[in-house]
Amino acid sequence: MDKPYLRELSKPSLENPIFVQGLPGFGNVGRIAAHLLTKFSEAKPFAELYSPSFPDYVSISSKGICHLPKYDFYYAAMEKSHLIIMTGETQPSFDDVLAHYEVCSDILSFVEKQGCRFLVTMGGVPITEEKAQVYVAATSPRLAAEFMEKGAVIYSKGRIVGGTGLTLALAKERGLEGVCFLGATTGFKADRGAGYQVFKFLMKTLGKEIKEGSQEKTFKP
Amino acid sequence: MDKPYLRELSKPSLENPIFVQGLPGFGNVGRIAAHLLTKFSEAKPFAELYSPSFPDYVSISSKGICHLPKYDFYYAAMEKSHLIIMTGETQPSFDDVLAHYEVCSDILSFVEKQGCRFLVTMGGVPITEEKAQVYVAATSPRLAAEFMEKGAVIYSKGRIVGGTGLTLALAKERGLEGVCFLGATTGFKADRGAGYQVFKFLMKTLGKEIKEGSQEKTFKP
Amino acid sequence: MDKPYLRELSKPSLENPIFVQGLPGFGNVGRIAAHLLTKFSEAKPFAELYSPSFPDYVSISSKGICHLPKYDFYYAAMEKSHLIIMTGETQPSFDDVLAHYEVCSDILSFVEKQGCRFLVTMGGVPITEEKAQVYVAATSPRLAAEFMEKGAVIYSKGRIVGGTGLTLALAKERGLEGVCFLGATTGFKADRGAGYQVFKFLMKTLGKEIKEGSQEKTFKP
Amino acid sequence: MDKPYLRELSKPSLENPIFVQGLPGFGNVGRIAAHLLTKFSEAKPFAELYSPSFPDYVSISSKGICHLPKYDFYYAAMEKSHLIIMTGETQPSFDDVLAHYEVCSDILSFVEKQGCRFLVTMGGVPITEEKAQVYVAATSPRLAAEFMEKGAVIYSKGRIVGGTGLTLALAKERGLEGVCFLGATTGFKADRGAGYQVFKFLMKTLGKEIKEGSQEKTFKP
Repeated sequence: MDKPYLRELSKPSLENPIFVQGLPGFGNVGRIAAHLLTKFSEAKPFAELYSPSFPDYVSISSKGICHLPKYDFYYAAMEKSHLIIMTGETQPSFDDVLAHYEVCSDILSFVEKQGCRFLVTMGGVPITEEKAQVYVAATSPRLAAEFMEKGAVIYSKGRIVGGTGLTLALAKERGLEGVCFLGATTGFKADRGAGYQVFKFLMKTLGKEIKEGSQEKTFKP
Repeated sequence: MDKPYLRELSKPSLENPIFVQGLPGFGNVGRIAAHLLTKFSEAKPFAELYSPSFPDYVSISSKGICHLPKYDFYYAAMEKSHLIIMTGETQPSFDDVLAHYEVCSDILSFVEKQGCRFLVTMGGVPITEEKAQVYVAATSPRLAAEFMEKGAVIYSKGRIVGGTGLTLALAKERGLEGVCFLGATTGFKADRGAGYQVFKFLMKTLGKEIKEGSQEKTFKP
Repeated sequence: MDKPYLRELSKPSLENPIFVQGLPGFGNVGRIAAHLLTKFSEAKPFAELYSPSFPDYVSISSKGICHLPKYDFYYAAMEKSHLIIMTGETQPSFDDVLAHYEVCSDILSFVEKQGCRFLVTMGGVPITEEKAQVYVAATSPRLAAEFMEKGAVIYSKGRIVGGTGLTLALAKERGLEGVCFLGATTGFKADRGAGYQVFKFLMKTLGKEIKEGSQEKTFKP
Repeated sequence: MDKPYLRELSKPSLENPIFVQGLPGFGNVGRIAAHLLTKFSEAKPFAELYSPSFPDYVSISSKGICHLPKYDFYYAAMEKSHLIIMTGETQPSFDDVLAHYEVCSDILSFVEKQGCRFLVTMGGVPITEEKAQVYVAATSPRLAAEFMEKGAVIYSKGRIVGGTGLTLALAKERGLEGVCFLGATTGFKADRGAGYQVFKFLMKTLGKEIKEGSQEKTFKP
């Protein structure tokens, strides 16, 4: 294996799918939000992406089974369309910029093939004071304004590192539309609260209001 | 994207263009000088270079729009010829030498295609004492001497790191001619004064004397 | 040389060979176990793997002869089948993940060509308290359980770094079966005791009980 | 440029040439010895090797002329044969193992094409106590013994890092013969004394005794 490769486990038929990506990073916000989303939407795995640029360790399951680091793609039915959700336990090394570009490009090629024209990436943004806030960046001023009206703050003049930013910016280059939701987080430890904020905001924008309290008990990300 | 790629926004018709490059580096001298030049000459953007070797973050504009790191090419009309000005917010990582060679080669291929036979790269050189001085290195002894007569000091036995040096040295390998102007700077912070010195020296060599004081108010780099 | 290359010294005819890999790592456990196994089974070298991703030094023998870093393949006859044993003095650099994938893939391609369908990788796992214990990870729950019954502890929810994990996980992707034996070791220094434990456990699973004490004098790894 | 490239300045006709390589490293011993040899033998430059793996700076001559980092090949006539001497101001980065293999392979392909069947690489070996000693490693026991008889000490069980070791070990893989001379040096600073010892030993083995004292005045490396 000297290139990323994608293994399809099944070939679901998807209607106008929206792609949602949540990878590990600051406070693990993106990954936690993606996890909540797969649970809530009862999403099913249908594809896996492997890459020789992922870290060189293998993980062992509780039953002693080894597996390579990978990204998992899930799909879920919404009222009139589908979601494709991607998450994973890792990212390519911070220095390996070429690998980041390659992996994000392969992700986009795959979801475009599935019919995606819109995507959401989710991550964290480090802040010094605790505050339940979701920031937004977008592929167009119209989209940024639209999600600002729904309660997000424009992530003005910021930077987004790793796959969370690259997938969105590369999507823009391909003529796709999308947004990035960043949950404010104070730490580098897994921040379930910030992940939940991003998940809740995403559900709201998808037309599904999440009631405070109730969900937090349901999900054990 | 696994190679640098160049997107042309328009195809201006350029007369004997001179290529001027100013990238970030010591005191951001090169980038500041290029910025002053684009303002002064009312240069227009016409091409963009993207590379998977640029840092893996994306930048967000004040309106929340994401974009990939890139180099921007501008053109401007002079009395009898044109300028092509290139600047950017970043450079490939310091360690990634291969990427530096690749990006600089792609830049040169593009400007050669536009008809360039002469180029100027601009950067900073760290010094310990403050001093308004421009140093010069060149592709030939004749050129070094010519610009020394115009007021620059030969950058004798020095080294130039990153794209500022490589673009010039690779141009020499291709049989092009050119010079590098290095503004003396004491710090790693953005040094507007040194950038202005390099810009002023460049304008003088292009036959356009810049009056002290007046310009400094006009430009807000 | 810009790719790993494999040099075959001879072409032994091998019956249902089992592949056993022991590379340097924590406590050098894998390498020591492989060394004990080659001595015990009177294994003969038959192939060498070179890679431009191995460290850039060359080693000099006691007689002053230089040689490139390499992995050595040995074969040995068992009662009804053969062993292929691979060991080496080095691994690709920790950061160079792509190289690890490439080298492990080349190893698997070679041993598959020799007819291998089952493999054992051996390494060390750092623990804080001294304890003679062998941990196991596997390509299937059935195999993990089988070796647990023989005395190993499931390496539950752990991670295995470098070639020891990757060779096993990549083998699983190819549809091969195998296990990884990890000897518990307290230090990063060569741990002969842990290497011996892994070797002894391997021999037991191959149907050859090793008597305590006697072997330790015979082998001088 | 995405590969090393070799530019031939002239095509001298060479008789049974011996290749001698001296690159920077510990105490700059190899480079100093190569420099002394080019002066002594009045060697003439005939080829240059460029590589995108060399450091990303360009050097400026005393007259202000820029040039890319490169290796220089010289030739010189001996009584019955020729020398090809290669030296340079740099090496690929320590981490970039693949680049080291690539550059050394390209060097060997070039000198083989010139008819070389024997080579000498020269470098330094760090020691704690000052001592004028030359160590030897070789491609065969016969050669190691031969040069030991001429006064060198076998570099038993050592390691040689970078191009000094790799060129020799890769040459051995190609079926060429050769030796490496390592001058003992206490420091990382340029060690003219150690460079001179290696040069003197090389000349002795080539049948040219160097008288103490006299040469040190003649050469100003």
